[in-house]
Amino acid sequence: MTTTLSPELLGRMDAYWRAANYLSVGQIYLFDNPLLKRPLELTDVKHTLLGHWGTTPGQNFIYVHLNRIIKQYDLNMLYISGPGHGGPAVVSNTYLEGTYSEIYPDISQDEAGLQKLFLQFSFPGGIPSHASPECPGSIHEGGELGYSLSHAFGAVFDNPDLVVACVIGDGEAETGPLATSWHSNKFLDPVTDGVVLPILHLNGYKIANPTVLARISREELEQLLRGYGWTPYFVEGHEPALMHAAMAATLDTVMAQIQDIQQAARVHGDLTRPRWPMIVLVSPKGWTGPKVVDGVQIEGTFRAHQVPLSNPVAHPEHLQLLEDWLNSYRPEELFDKHGRLQPELAELAPTGERRMGANPHANGGMLLRDLRMPDFQDYAVDVPTPGVSGIGDTRVLGRFLRDVATLNGEQRNFRIFAPDEILSNGLEALFEVTQRQWDAATVANDEFLAPSGRVLDSMLSEHQCEGWLEGYLLTGRHGLFNCYEAFIHIIDSMFNQHAKWLKVTAHLPWRRKIASLNYLLTSHVWRQTANGFTHQDPGFIDHVVNKKAEVVRVYFPPDANCLLSVMDHCLRSRHYVNVVIAGKHPAPQWLSMDAAVKHCTQGISIWQWASNDQDAETDVVMACCGDVPTLETLAAVSILREHLPDLKIRVVNVVDLMKLQPQSEHPHGLSDADFDTIFTKDKPVIFAFHAYPWLIHRLTYRRTNHDNFHVRGYKEEGTISTPFDMTVMNDLDRFHLVMDAIDRLPQTGDKGSYLKQQLKDKLIEHKQYIGKYGQDMPEIRDWMWGITADATL
Amino acid sequence: MTTTLSPELLGRMDAYWRAANYLSVGQIYLFDNPLLKRPLELTDVKHTLLGHWGTTPGQNFIYVHLNRIIKQYDLNMLYISGPGHGGPAVVSNTYLEGTYSEIYPDISQDEAGLQKLFLQFSFPGGIPSHASPECPGSIHEGGELGYSLSHAFGAVFDNPDLVVACVIGDGEAETGPLATSWHSNKFLDPVTDGVVLPILHLNGYKIANPTVLARISREELEQLLRGYGWTPYFVEGHEPALMHAAMAATLDTVMAQIQDIQQAARVHGDLTRPRWPMIVLVSPKGWTGPKVVDGVQIEGTFRAHQVPLSNPVAHPEHLQLLEDWLNSYRPEELFDKHGRLQPELAELAPTGERRMGANPHANGGMLLRDLRMPDFQDYAVDVPTPGVSGIGDTRVLGRFLRDVATLNGEQRNFRIFAPDEILSNGLEALFEVTQRQWDAATVANDEFLAPSGRVLDSMLSEHQCEGWLEGYLLTGRHGLFNCYEAFIHIIDSMFNQHAKWLKVTAHLPWRRKIASLNYLLTSHVWRQTANGFTHQDPGFIDHVVNKKAEVVRVYFPPDANCLLSVMDHCLRSRHYVNVVIAGKHPAPQWLSMDAAVKHCTQGISIWQWASNDQDAETDVVMACCGDVPTLETLAAVSILREHLPDLKIRVVNVVDLMKLQPQSEHPHGLSDADFDTIFTKDKPVIFAFHAYPWLIHRLTYRRTNHDNFHVRGYKEEGTISTPFDMTVMNDLDRFHLVMDAIDRLPQTGDKGSYLKQQLKDKLIEHKQYIGKYGQDMPEIRDWMWGITADATL
Repeated sequence: MTTTLSPELLGRMDAYWRAANYLSVGQIYLFDNPLLKRPLELTDVKHTLLGHWGTTPGQNFIYVHLNRIIKQYDLNMLYISGPGHGGPAVVSNTYLEGTYSEIYPDISQDEAGLQKLFLQFSFPGGIPSHASPECPGSIHEGGELGYSLSHAFGAVFDNPDLVVACVIGDGEAETGPLATSWHSNKFLDPVTDGVVLPILHLNGYKIANPTVLARISREELEQLLRGYGWTPYFVEGHEPALMHAAMAATLDTVMAQIQDIQQAARVHGDLTRPRWPMIVLVSPKGWTGPKVVDGVQIEGTFRAHQVPLSNPVAHPEHLQLLEDWLNSYRPEELFDKHGRLQPELAELAPTGERRMGANPHANGGMLLRDLRMPDFQDYAVDVPTPGVSGIGDTRVLGRFLRDVATLNGEQRNFRIFAPDEILSNGLEALFEVTQRQWDAATVANDEFLAPSGRVLDSMLSEHQCEGWLEGYLLTGRHGLFNCYEAFIHIIDSMFNQHAKWLKVTAHLPWRRKIASLNYLLTSHVWRQTANGFTHQDPGFIDHVVNKKAEVVRVYFPPDANCLLSVMDHCLRSRHYVNVVIAGKHPAPQWLSMDAAVKHCTQGISIWQWASNDQDAETDVVMACCGDVPTLETLAAVSILREHLPDLKIRVVNVVDLMKLQPQSEHPHGLSDADFDTIFTKDKPVIFAFHAYPWLIHRLTYRRTNHDNFHVRGYKEEGTISTPFDMTVMNDLDRFHLVMDAIDRLPQTGDKGSYLKQQLKDKLIEHKQYIGKYGQDMPEIRDWMWGITADATL
Repeated sequence: MTTTLSPELLGRMDAYWRAANYLSVGQIYLFDNPLLKRPLELTDVKHTLLGHWGTTPGQNFIYVHLNRIIKQYDLNMLYISGPGHGGPAVVSNTYLEGTYSEIYPDISQDEAGLQKLFLQFSFPGGIPSHASPECPGSIHEGGELGYSLSHAFGAVFDNPDLVVACVIGDGEAETGPLATSWHSNKFLDPVTDGVVLPILHLNGYKIANPTVLARISREELEQLLRGYGWTPYFVEGHEPALMHAAMAATLDTVMAQIQDIQQAARVHGDLTRPRWPMIVLVSPKGWTGPKVVDGVQIEGTFRAHQVPLSNPVAHPEHLQLLEDWLNSYRPEELFDKHGRLQPELAELAPTGERRMGANPHANGGMLLRDLRMPDFQDYAVDVPTPGVSGIGDTRVLGRFLRDVATLNGEQRNFRIFAPDEILSNGLEALFEVTQRQWDAATVANDEFLAPSGRVLDSMLSEHQCEGWLEGYLLTGRHGLFNCYEAFIHIIDSMFNQHAKWLKVTAHLPWRRKIASLNYLLTSHVWRQTANGFTHQDPGFIDHVVNKKAEVVRVYFPPDANCLLSVMDHCLRSRHYVNVVIAGKHPAPQWLSMDAAVKHCTQGISIWQWASNDQDAETDVVMACCGDVPTLETLAAVSILREHLPDLKIRVVNVVDLMKLQPQSEHPHGLSDADFDTIFTKDKPVIFAFHAYPWLIHRLTYRRTNHDNFHVRGYKEEGTISTPFDMTVMNDLDRFHLVMDAIDRLPQTGDKGSYLKQQLKDKLIEHKQYIGKYGQDMPEIRDWMWGITADATL
């Protein structure tokens, strides 16, 4: 490998690197005296030393070299900092290139600004030691590890001119999500997508342990990366001059290879899957920091992870070591007396939006274009009377999504992600107009695979779906994650981080709002009777509603027209997480499109057509939320109305779960007056809920009538069975709902008791029937307005 | 590769394989006529066809070959079925080897038993299509994918004679957890641990898509597996005779290599990390099933995933195809007229506990030995008066765990797992007596790494920690997972599956109870002020308490003596999931060991020493749960008692969260009478809670005094700050708690209003102070019985 750059340029790059390192150490330590204009004193050092040094010099090194190639090749480049605690590096570099001060004018490019820059870092009310939302150029905080490479790929989909330099920590590389995300290269189209340049930062240590990839043979590591489909280039050492030369030469090699690949694909139509280049940077942890402190090796060991000199108060000699360390970067050569970077160094950075801190892709809302939306009402299911058969609500939605994909085919800013579940979940209509994006080999009998397409569902990894989609949204596009309800828990923790990102960025005025993260959860708990208990878990929404109310929304459309209305709303929304739970199996339809729009707009309403309390005092409220609970509630109501015709029954359906919360807790929350109007102040409420029943109590415990709420939902009972039996196992079926109502309506007297006994007997009979025939008794399915529970799986 | 077996033996093995395939097809389809004694009719076929064929013939093939080597080498072998829906295979094989009928005598080895075996599969009230808990020999249901290899490694730790054959689906291999679990081989000691033999089943397809590993070049796949540190052997083809010969020869090669490695390590002390062998079985999906149906290719495509002939009612010609398919296995050669496997085939299976369905490791409770426990009271912190300084509660616990490790060093049945967090979480005492198990390279400056040790914390993967520990517990050992609180969400979904496993196995009389899954969560939300918002999430317990009450337990020990008492209890318990949340930072201590034991035994109690309502009517209950809430509550009480000395205050502390639930909901729940005695029926309760506040409402909404509960907890506010300021941001600090009390105590009049105003001013002053100095105002920390909140991070 030969040097391609002049010694003069390499010397200036080294100086720029030293400047970034100086600023990084300053951030970790300095309370005052930012330019060391006077000898360092204890009062110049922060009282509590936090923040992390280990990964920082390596990332500073990478950044200055990326700046060089951005300028040389006029690259449109984003930087993702995967290792934990890369904050000092990205803050230092965006400050040096000027973006930081443009966004935060108070952190000016002078001595006063430097002092504030240093003070705010890992300081109460300041900024974290990760590449947090406050940092310009960041779309990836990296507080939790493992998602950098998926985010990077999400960012380059449909951005053919973009290059994402993704620094991956060798600790991060041990996480499961990162380990599988190397395979993202099988899903990238070199023609219509951009490029990810992974830079594995092999600095050898995590918090207190060596890393696995640093302790296997170099031959094994190379095999691993080649096996993942990459062409690795190693840059290894610790001597700065040699390392600069090696890194520069390697980047030139890599850029040439990327250009060759793109040219082959874009100009010559070469369809073979490229073996994209990547870099392994092998450098000491805590490079250029203290070598030995108190007789113990620091640089190049796990001890360099956090703060190498941790307590200058207790060890006055550490103060001198710190001063020596800072001076080792020769700050007087780097900054003028006002604290401004020397012009011959400043000019090394790109300018304008080519600066990685100012790249608009990193503030995706700036590039966000509205989706072109078909009129969702055009996809309406005809519902002449409530209870007509449907084909499966997600199947209806599939047609709508198909046309969203088509209408935005040109602006290429809408994608659907799933872990091999698009067909299983009933969205097959998509394949009428688009394909699964897939760049690995194809053979006869494959279906719907193509180098480019709006669907990414050919990798069985919920982590990848979530990570790709997040990266896609964060860079200003739109999308949907379609998943089995139970297994969305796999990405609980990723959801957490994204929700936190949304919360923080919503309050940063310079950050533009991005499209919402939309989950379509189907194959849900009540219809997992074929897959059994392992596939039954409706708890994701409990997890979601723990996050800030300003960010989360949860919808339970009871039929296809409602699902269309809800999804139209979600796809237009901004900066939320929308969770939509819907069925895929044939199921009865309740509302005409007009009624559905009205109902969904209200989020909750009384279904007058199913109620009979219009002219009298209500005896009982039968409430429901979710498609199966709605079916069972309406069936229960039909039984009650047939057998106890004097009862005045009100049916309430909830689409927007957050309507139940007090207005003080969620912007969608009903006022107490409206809540009382709907649920009454004192009548029994039998509430059939899709998920764990206590969530309804949690949301409503402050409401007037809460003590009369009796909630049925999933209570962790289930196995292989029929759909109806699933509801029986959890006391959510029509018979139990009727019995629950009778228990709370003493006025039903003997007639009520008699009916209750009948239903108990019927349940026993039914259990025997399914045990013998493996299916629901036909009369169960017919016991209402011709509506069937439909046992199809 | 040459055949090592006689054609006669290979022929019988093929027949055995056909028998297993026949039984598998029978399970998926047959309602009756199990031996095809008469022509197949529609009424012989199940009404609803569920269950999965795709992976089954390959697993049947593997199983018969494993049986052969078990007998030949007298192996102690477990079988783990990683691919989705391997149920038909493991059920068929455990039936053929006799274990199924021993456990379920009703499923006898005759025609009547066959009919029941077929009927129960994927039938309401029957068994799922995975290797579910009902299946003998299974420790891994595999309903959710990705954990087979981690479970396999967990099973062989400290079982030097055990071999786990772990079949990995090529779809499963795309998940993150599986992708990183290949690296488990760097953590296995060839001397003291057993062997995992991974068999990657490359059958090319998932549900509706090809698999990634099947569509990269064979060279890339081999590089990948070698890069992961394995020596792969490929067995590829579809012609049964050739495949049998190849598989047999390969298994002989692999066994020889395993024996060589073990001999080198165990006899000759060779410490180099072995490159263990593994097998890649490349066979058609749905092998031996229908080739073409309705003109469409089935075998060898994704269409073979589930039920190849899906609707014989609508397509009568499918009935003939099904009969042909079943007859293609020549059942008349395999079973006698009574439905019993021919003796020359039956003898191919191992006998007794060598049968994989009867291996006691797969029913871990059979091998479970009690831990030898030190007396936890010997580790007591001396607490002469409440509020003395502690060193960090987990640090005290570390000494106890150290001695648990020592006492069980000989029986080798206790391990601690963490993602590089043992030191960070304060359990450094462990390294006084044991090491981190690590079989990769070591260099100078490494600490506590050794080929064998009780600690596994050198891999940064929560998935691996959880998977290894689960495998370890399921095979009859004990352990603990120590994790940062926020990031335990990474394994939410794994916890789900394990909790479901515990629930189901608790009700299977032949399954013995296993040791509890213990989580020690620390570096918790209130002390993540150095790492910031991304590290703050106390919601794991919300997730946990959704699972069956019979399985889950949640503990919040407020100090070190309580933590010792709780952990002693958890380590002795069986078949639970215990979540223990404790602090690692220096914090005040409240209870002497005697008091702690009493308090923890009760799970909740009135702290009389902090209360002053002994001789009068209580004015307010100040309740707390969690170490930081306890500190803030006691500080608030000290302020109230100083400034409003007439108030009668009761202090209640909750250790066992489940005490709050009604007895009807959880076995630990307090009776309503006891609850009322503690919390009063009508006095205000100011409840300071560690986690999201609504959980307390959810648990208590049925209690008499619930309307007077005012709960403070984490409300998703936080960033880099001081520990005290974290409580302020969430209104959980002592000042807010005092103000909350005053708001509910009108009798405090002007004095109350005055105090409230003082506290408001103090908070403003404090915010200014920390903004300037980065630390809490000293007087904040001293405003109680000399107790400090301690800002150390």
